[in-house]
Amino acid sequence: MTAQMPPAHPFDDDKLREECGVFGVVGVKDAANFVALGLHALQHRGQEAGGIVSHDPEQGFNSARRFGYVRDNFTKQSLMETLPGPLAIGHVRYSTAGSKGNTAIRDVQPFFGEFSMGGAAIAHNGNLTNANSLRRELIERGSIFQSSSDSECIIHLMARSLQQNVPERIKDALRRVEGAFSVVAMTRTKLIGVRDPLGVRPLVIGRIGEDGWVLSSETCALDIIGAEFIRDVDPGEMVVIEHGLLKSHRPFEPAKPRFCIFEQVYFSRPDSILMGRSVYETRRQIGIELARESAVDADIVCPVPDSGTPAAIGFSHESGIPYGMGIIRNQYMGRTFIEPTEQIRNMGVRLKLNVNRALIKGKRVILVDDSVVRGTTSRKIKDMILDAGAAEVHFRIASPPTAWPCFYGVDTPDRDKLLAARMSEDEMRDYLGVDSLKFISLDGLYRAAGEAEGRSKSCPQFCDACFSGEYPVEPRDMVEKGFQLKAAE
Amino acid sequence: MTAQMPPAHPFDDDKLREECGVFGVVGVKDAANFVALGLHALQHRGQEAGGIVSHDPEQGFNSARRFGYVRDNFTKQSLMETLPGPLAIGHVRYSTAGSKGNTAIRDVQPFFGEFSMGGAAIAHNGNLTNANSLRRELIERGSIFQSSSDSECIIHLMARSLQQNVPERIKDALRRVEGAFSVVAMTRTKLIGVRDPLGVRPLVIGRIGEDGWVLSSETCALDIIGAEFIRDVDPGEMVVIEHGLLKSHRPFEPAKPRFCIFEQVYFSRPDSILMGRSVYETRRQIGIELARESAVDADIVCPVPDSGTPAAIGFSHESGIPYGMGIIRNQYMGRTFIEPTEQIRNMGVRLKLNVNRALIKGKRVILVDDSVVRGTTSRKIKDMILDAGAAEVHFRIASPPTAWPCFYGVDTPDRDKLLAARMSEDEMRDYLGVDSLKFISLDGLYRAAGEAEGRSKSCPQFCDACFSGEYPVEPRDMVEKGFQLKAAE
Amino acid sequence: MTAQMPPAHPFDDDKLREECGVFGVVGVKDAANFVALGLHALQHRGQEAGGIVSHDPEQGFNSARRFGYVRDNFTKQSLMETLPGPLAIGHVRYSTAGSKGNTAIRDVQPFFGEFSMGGAAIAHNGNLTNANSLRRELIERGSIFQSSSDSECIIHLMARSLQQNVPERIKDALRRVEGAFSVVAMTRTKLIGVRDPLGVRPLVIGRIGEDGWVLSSETCALDIIGAEFIRDVDPGEMVVIEHGLLKSHRPFEPAKPRFCIFEQVYFSRPDSILMGRSVYETRRQIGIELARESAVDADIVCPVPDSGTPAAIGFSHESGIPYGMGIIRNQYMGRTFIEPTEQIRNMGVRLKLNVNRALIKGKRVILVDDSVVRGTTSRKIKDMILDAGAAEVHFRIASPPTAWPCFYGVDTPDRDKLLAARMSEDEMRDYLGVDSLKFISLDGLYRAAGEAEGRSKSCPQFCDACFSGEYPVEPRDMVEKGFQLKAAE
Amino acid sequence: MTAQMPPAHPFDDDKLREECGVFGVVGVKDAANFVALGLHALQHRGQEAGGIVSHDPEQGFNSARRFGYVRDNFTKQSLMETLPGPLAIGHVRYSTAGSKGNTAIRDVQPFFGEFSMGGAAIAHNGNLTNANSLRRELIERGSIFQSSSDSECIIHLMARSLQQNVPERIKDALRRVEGAFSVVAMTRTKLIGVRDPLGVRPLVIGRIGEDGWVLSSETCALDIIGAEFIRDVDPGEMVVIEHGLLKSHRPFEPAKPRFCIFEQVYFSRPDSILMGRSVYETRRQIGIELARESAVDADIVCPVPDSGTPAAIGFSHESGIPYGMGIIRNQYMGRTFIEPTEQIRNMGVRLKLNVNRALIKGKRVILVDDSVVRGTTSRKIKDMILDAGAAEVHFRIASPPTAWPCFYGVDTPDRDKLLAARMSEDEMRDYLGVDSLKFISLDGLYRAAGEAEGRSKSCPQFCDACFSGEYPVEPRDMVEKGFQLKAAE
Repeated sequence: MTAQMPPAHPFDDDKLREECGVFGVVGVKDAANFVALGLHALQHRGQEAGGIVSHDPEQGFNSARRFGYVRDNFTKQSLMETLPGPLAIGHVRYSTAGSKGNTAIRDVQPFFGEFSMGGAAIAHNGNLTNANSLRRELIERGSIFQSSSDSECIIHLMARSLQQNVPERIKDALRRVEGAFSVVAMTRTKLIGVRDPLGVRPLVIGRIGEDGWVLSSETCALDIIGAEFIRDVDPGEMVVIEHGLLKSHRPFEPAKPRFCIFEQVYFSRPDSILMGRSVYETRRQIGIELARESAVDADIVCPVPDSGTPAAIGFSHESGIPYGMGIIRNQYMGRTFIEPTEQIRNMGVRLKLNVNRALIKGKRVILVDDSVVRGTTSRKIKDMILDAGAAEVHFRIASPPTAWPCFYGVDTPDRDKLLAARMSEDEMRDYLGVDSLKFISLDGLYRAAGEAEGRSKSCPQFCDACFSGEYPVEPRDMVEKGFQLKAAE
Repeated sequence: MTAQMPPAHPFDDDKLREECGVFGVVGVKDAANFVALGLHALQHRGQEAGGIVSHDPEQGFNSARRFGYVRDNFTKQSLMETLPGPLAIGHVRYSTAGSKGNTAIRDVQPFFGEFSMGGAAIAHNGNLTNANSLRRELIERGSIFQSSSDSECIIHLMARSLQQNVPERIKDALRRVEGAFSVVAMTRTKLIGVRDPLGVRPLVIGRIGEDGWVLSSETCALDIIGAEFIRDVDPGEMVVIEHGLLKSHRPFEPAKPRFCIFEQVYFSRPDSILMGRSVYETRRQIGIELARESAVDADIVCPVPDSGTPAAIGFSHESGIPYGMGIIRNQYMGRTFIEPTEQIRNMGVRLKLNVNRALIKGKRVILVDDSVVRGTTSRKIKDMILDAGAAEVHFRIASPPTAWPCFYGVDTPDRDKLLAARMSEDEMRDYLGVDSLKFISLDGLYRAAGEAEGRSKSCPQFCDACFSGEYPVEPRDMVEKGFQLKAAE
Repeated sequence: MTAQMPPAHPFDDDKLREECGVFGVVGVKDAANFVALGLHALQHRGQEAGGIVSHDPEQGFNSARRFGYVRDNFTKQSLMETLPGPLAIGHVRYSTAGSKGNTAIRDVQPFFGEFSMGGAAIAHNGNLTNANSLRRELIERGSIFQSSSDSECIIHLMARSLQQNVPERIKDALRRVEGAFSVVAMTRTKLIGVRDPLGVRPLVIGRIGEDGWVLSSETCALDIIGAEFIRDVDPGEMVVIEHGLLKSHRPFEPAKPRFCIFEQVYFSRPDSILMGRSVYETRRQIGIELARESAVDADIVCPVPDSGTPAAIGFSHESGIPYGMGIIRNQYMGRTFIEPTEQIRNMGVRLKLNVNRALIKGKRVILVDDSVVRGTTSRKIKDMILDAGAAEVHFRIASPPTAWPCFYGVDTPDRDKLLAARMSEDEMRDYLGVDSLKFISLDGLYRAAGEAEGRSKSCPQFCDACFSGEYPVEPRDMVEKGFQLKAAE
Repeated sequence: MTAQMPPAHPFDDDKLREECGVFGVVGVKDAANFVALGLHALQHRGQEAGGIVSHDPEQGFNSARRFGYVRDNFTKQSLMETLPGPLAIGHVRYSTAGSKGNTAIRDVQPFFGEFSMGGAAIAHNGNLTNANSLRRELIERGSIFQSSSDSECIIHLMARSLQQNVPERIKDALRRVEGAFSVVAMTRTKLIGVRDPLGVRPLVIGRIGEDGWVLSSETCALDIIGAEFIRDVDPGEMVVIEHGLLKSHRPFEPAKPRFCIFEQVYFSRPDSILMGRSVYETRRQIGIELARESAVDADIVCPVPDSGTPAAIGFSHESGIPYGMGIIRNQYMGRTFIEPTEQIRNMGVRLKLNVNRALIKGKRVILVDDSVVRGTTSRKIKDMILDAGAAEVHFRIASPPTAWPCFYGVDTPDRDKLLAARMSEDEMRDYLGVDSLKFISLDGLYRAAGEAEGRSKSCPQFCDACFSGEYPVEPRDMVEKGFQLKAAE
């Protein structure tokens, strides 16, 4: 089934992919319906599968896990009726840790555990960097793992905690794990949210109706249910919502926040607010910075749809070069057509995009894309643009070269598959075969993200490991497996 | 199954809908694979169902008809292997004539008939305006209809023709029908294309490989298979392609062409070329004309995604008001979520769109949309924009008021459901609750479509019946049923 | 889907197969529900697919056709609600004529035609022996066939009839066809039944409730809905039921009846009444005749389940040799398991049957089976019985040697595949590897079927072409294709 | 899906139901294919769902769990290819303990656990009578249960064992559980079988090919794969098969065996060998005993199909009254047809059975059935027999009155639903409305089962708690919940 699923973005196979979105609601009638809507709004964060757990005072805990889109599963009356009650949490996922591409339904979150003081469910966005050693230890002590997901460690650690209530057990558990985690959890009466001390992944708080509260990966999912955005969960904060009241806890050692800068560049939806700033505006500013840093004489600025659009608008605005839709996206994307025997060049790309030939012909074209990962798609797009008769092709990239894998909840190729890990900018330009190729500088990106002074060398304001190779949390499991960290300078 | 299908465009239920796309290929290996790709590129012309007929010298005619998207059906090896051979045609459909919303699989084209000289298949884009009386006559003479489609008349007329070959039988049949038709047909060796004398619906010719020929509703479907665009089939022309050669016939009385102007405004893909002009460019010009005709002081120009985008770009360019993405489209649209009991205003719209609140807040916003049909969606969008804090909302519409139904192959609501049939422009503005509402003039639209002098009063260059109420072919079946034509002036 | 369907009888692939059952009801609320039950009771007559057409005064004609068992399709509320009204007919089918094994859903009956005086549907059990020439003629005159079924000729002949009502058109049509037919048809108000002049296939009349009437292939389907068995439709009779009244017509030239004797031996269910006689009792009598004709000294009489059971009971009773279940049938049959690589002898048989080893060991066993077609299964059963330690194996067959194919609605292998067409009785015994093999004589079979004098040489009371090679209606299409009739003696 | 599944036996809803069958193979190529066949042969022991776990040296452990019949799931190449390797075990289930009728796929066995020394899978037939208290204890210590099945306790006990290999851990675990269990388990290299000390449920050993071994609930599943029956696993025995060698262990305190006598009466297939005796022969002997104990003057002996057949044959043999098929079973059973609005009496029964009216009419009929549970079906059958014109109806039941629920792995109604718990034999006769009703005596049943002296009062040779109320293992969980044991006499 999943094999047939069209990708979220036209070049998913050549993008970094966020692996998860989480959402929870308490204090409304039929909370699961709200969670379904929230997950639908977070679908860009994970398209492989989704799950919802709800609790009803009379019918207890119920859950449903399904492969595929939220809209295809959690819209059926017959299914949603099995998820009653005023409290529910949900999760959409790509696989990161866990068996990639071969996910079993038991890998789909939220995970549920029955403890002696009652049940609890948790949904996790992020990635634990010490999951392997934790798992080994737990198995030795008699825990039985049901999934291949790193997140399952959390629920086993909770099961073994000696604390007498679930929030304390969550603290116990999360103090043992390392890495990035934004967690939404629930008991029979409580909705709980936690962010790791660095706050790598987003998590926000909203209110709905009289007494309702919402936790969500992004604000765009508050909008869909008409909830009011209150604030971010702080890095290192745990919020426990019960009987209409929210209490804040600080279970971890204080640390300097390191929010993921790639959320700004690509993962989050442009209509979300991250750290008090509009994602759309940040991306438009990236385009402005790019135009300043790497101007070029040209006839038209075109986005690579859809993620390059805000930066292309900013670039056009700053440069004065007209904005146009040089590439048209097929709204009914697919990627599994049978290749006809005659040679169709770049067929995979054609299933998703088509060049607007009449607009492009004879023009000097600036193409604005969000990132270059393997470079395979960029080459194909360049081919299509030239086939259509463009006079020149200039690539402008709304992020610095992606040279390092992410271990905090993003699906990245192995380092040797990353174009920027193998080539210099000039080599990449030649490899792609374009007239020019420019990436935004790390400082320019920080400026666009609101840091007027650019990146602090001593204490960067974001996690930018994918660009800089500086990992704010040591990727312990990966180092154990032989991953080479960047040499200290 | 179809009930679960997300709509093609975010407000499908408040749009005019094209009902069909046709595609045919001859002279390639495994032609059906090409047809599948072509239909995928034409999916915007019909999402309800699709069908392919192929012919192989050894295995004869084969066919497959399926509900749902091309990408979900005609991508399976097991199915495509049942459609061998170098010659194939296909069809995607919405229901127009025929049982709306209750289509049986036997209504899905292409239709196939076994004649004494061999079999033939046809696929029809358009609508016959005398289908009812033809059907009555054919039944009286002993024909058995298998579908509720008006197009089936054509194959029965062919079966009863006394001509000794299929092309002549097609001529016989099409001389009896009235209305709009772009037909792609095939025999064991021939690929055939015909356009009605007025050329209401598009049909283009392409070449592929050494000896291959293609017929397609739009040029964007040539691009996907790497075919070269040769020319339009002329209004009133029939082309017969056999053994690598194309012959042109003129079976009908000559007439002045009346190509559908709504194809320019909305139906066709922006990356297609219609009548030698780029659809994207025509739409951008509409935005320019609109800005000239109905300028307004404002802070930002936003398209209603996705169909309003080229006109919004043009409007911004002409007016100098910045272009921005004030409304963000959810890429995973859906429309069947279960409504939570608490009131979520405009939930249906929220499933598809979200306002980019940070961009809109406090701004005077110009929204550019392609058309207003019932007006229900426009009201909801206005509500969302105001909820997000816009200071003013100005609607600019890239087509004149839609006041008359189409009987030539477009799914239009009954006349009394059309907002513009019931209200003046001022009444519409008040009904929608916006600060201003302006439609492009009919002359402005003609200018944007390349007619520098605007619309010829004596002999309009396009079919614009949906705006003007002037039907170039009398809608005989509808008049029989009591439809009131516009009173002569 | 059909590929997964378990066969009706354990050795379907080595049995003659009835191809159809028909059923109709009028004068009850929601007639389609009764038809579903009736078809379920007739499922042994055809397992590939089923269809129902109903008529409701307000909602007109409706139909549903499905592959697979009645119980898996026509039991869903959502489907049955689409088939309202007091009048309905239905059909279950195997393919005979038409594309064997590759049936399209459009081949599934009932067939429906819209005539100028209104619609009509027909369901046909039997086979037309002049279908090919009729089809050729109809196509030349402009009819378009939708299926590969011979039965479709009937509805086209009806469409072209000049008669002014459906019953007269049915007469016109059926006077043109040759072969075997038991037809159930309906208009908006009439339920119609016809049997061919020889009455080859069964058709019975029943009453239900106050005003209700039923037509059915067999009486067992009357029992399931609690209808009362009234009488057989006579060979050559047409009954027209309307407004609660039945009228009898005789549209054909009178002829001597030739009911299919294989219905007695195998096709019909043992709890049906054919020609006034219990099928079970006839089969038990066959066992008695067999015991008289071919006694043998043995320890136990075992049926080959399930069709050999009544004859085995009769054989045991007449011979005094104890009856026992030497072969146990798996109630969850299947035939598509993946063959393990190690050699499992006769795996196909083992999926369906197992020998009751403890009962068989060391015994002289008489196995009673209904017929021998290819002989492949009989060999496997013999192997299993011997493997289990039987001392002797004696086959007794409840029908004469099957040496000729049936052209009247039964799926028979080509003549050269029939064991009895290639071998004498002794050769068959040696081929099967059994200690003795005896078939009932044709006279014995006639006696068991109630003809005390046995078979009339001059004018046989049954159609026994499969045994005798004497075809009461010339198989015209087959002779055209080169089939060799038995040489006159 | 399960809702559509036809029942295994015609009156499943009025039968005691076995809940499980287990099967394992080692030492063959593609062991899972053999397991699929074995489970197919054991399908009568559980139709709700099935699962297979296999191990391959290169691909490790793999598993598949599916609702529905084995033949519909484990026959697909695409699925079976995911289960490679020379070692596999499987399970078919009804729900007993665990969530009845609402089984989740995670409740479907075999259960798998990853231990520090490697993985292991187990499949369990039976029921644990102390599962509730075990589960409570395990949760308190931090185990997370994934299913509602009592059997899951075993794998958690194994995970927490301090033993260094899986067989020792199984011993540890099984020494903690109470109740009935026949377990098949596997590690990467070992196939393991255990029976509880009383040997309540069956488990047999077979050999296949050169080095292959088989464990199976019944011998009929050895036959289907051509394996040779070696012997029963002894009560209280554990066998460990590795590298082609079987080693026997005795981990439990010795006890007097108490094999379930209902396996003899109904659960096991008639072609199986239990405790060295043919099930068919035992059932035939029951008929003989019944005829001796409760003779009656009558014209015909008919089984209630299919389970009453061997006893009916024995009854006929002993009494000299002819045997006949008075009730015919529909081979395409179903139970979900939509009830037509007119009254069809006993429709549920008619979907499965029909009376052979011609045979029954005017006769004094002895009906032999295996058991009476609620009595609802017996009443309906009696009605049908009388409707068909029987002169007298005499029920003879092949088991004593079922007056007590089973807690050892059989799905029994609550005690107050059991007809024999509420009524005397005479009251039951009047309630059923038959001319006479006789059950076999407990001593008669023991004699038929090979105990010439009948039931030993002091130390019964079988578990017959369902008849006697004497439970050989205290049903601890049930007593905790308030179940009243039989008062000591």
